[in-house]
Amino acid sequence: MLIEFTVVPLGSGSSIGDRVAEVLRIVDESGLPYKLTPMGTVVEGEWEDLFRLVKKCHKAVLKNEERVLTSISVDDRKGKKNRLVGKVESIEKRLGKSLKK
Amino acid sequence: MLIEFTVVPLGSGSSIGDRVAEVLRIVDESGLPYKLTPMGTVVEGEWEDLFRLVKKCHKAVLKNEERVLTSISVDDRKGKKNRLVGKVESIEKRLGKSLKK
Amino acid sequence: MLIEFTVVPLGSGSSIGDRVAEVLRIVDESGLPYKLTPMGTVVEGEWEDLFRLVKKCHKAVLKNEERVLTSISVDDRKGKKNRLVGKVESIEKRLGKSLKK
Amino acid sequence: MLIEFTVVPLGSGSSIGDRVAEVLRIVDESGLPYKLTPMGTVVEGEWEDLFRLVKKCHKAVLKNEERVLTSISVDDRKGKKNRLVGKVESIEKRLGKSLKK
Repeated sequence: MLIEFTVVPLGSGSSIGDRVAEVLRIVDESGLPYKLTPMGTVVEGEWEDLFRLVKKCHKAVLKNEERVLTSISVDDRKGKKNRLVGKVESIEKRLGKSLKK
Repeated sequence: MLIEFTVVPLGSGSSIGDRVAEVLRIVDESGLPYKLTPMGTVVEGEWEDLFRLVKKCHKAVLKNEERVLTSISVDDRKGKKNRLVGKVESIEKRLGKSLKK
Repeated sequence: MLIEFTVVPLGSGSSIGDRVAEVLRIVDESGLPYKLTPMGTVVEGEWEDLFRLVKKCHKAVLKNEERVLTSISVDDRKGKKNRLVGKVESIEKRLGKSLKK
Repeated sequence: MLIEFTVVPLGSGSSIGDRVAEVLRIVDESGLPYKLTPMGTVVEGEWEDLFRLVKKCHKAVLKNEERVLTSISVDDRKGKKNRLVGKVESIEKRLGKSLKK
């Protein structure tokens, strides 16, 4: 299954890049397949692995902040694998053209 | 901490009320404090309890569907309790008037 | 149609209640039917009216902040009215019991 | 400013690829800078242009469906341009390494 998630600290001011970098370091070290987008991080895996990762990121940011907002979207489709690449390819195939990604 | 979550089955057509009722039955039986809103369910508790509940709801709907989209928003603020009621009251207090809820 | 929306300023610290109160004052004065929940504001109306309202709230908060994150969820179902109340009632009817709301 | 959005039809079954392809065709023809991700579409521009685009996509899908769920996340930061590329680069710079994207 795929998730997209974001972790937003409230209390660091408008530049939250250091916290987001910390989250991405944890995601990158997890070994799970992922994609960083301009609005979040998409990760593929099983429920337990993915939510253990999100919790680790959330708690790491909360350590140095008073309040943290975390959003998670799950797309879980039976019998489908490699959707990190496959979903975009499927749209391109239907349109018969390459899209920006 | 507070979460709001929704579980949306793809494949049941436009009326997904039976699935949503199933989710609410699970939430109601969990014993965790919650509030059903027109756009989701808000629950208060600790990370592990809340995500065990969301997983249970997600898996229950997935049992009878091919694809399920689940969204979760977390608001985690240190040292604050009873926010299911407190957040709305705090806004009303600031405005000095009662709001629709 | 129904929307739920939240407006989060980054840069005010962890207590964003004054900004949220400002948003609710605008919503309350709009005359549109709404419900304040612990995690957002649900409003019912037509696309143009709803997004004019969201823009007004977003811009009001941005005036005094450097960065604002706004989230909007739309649930648009043909031929259905009064869903601010009707969606919750429909779940209760299916379960045959009253839920917390 | 940046938005990420998704348009989900309820009633087409679990494979909604044709509807998503229709949305992407509209986005691609808009001329606005965008990025298709596995979980949504990120677009950069001004409020009016972006929400005109989202409305066009939402209404196009609603034409053939009874119910449509649309989600939009806005990240609006004063004085910042080219964030479709810049946000990811900024994280990579902080970490001193290239990330998957």
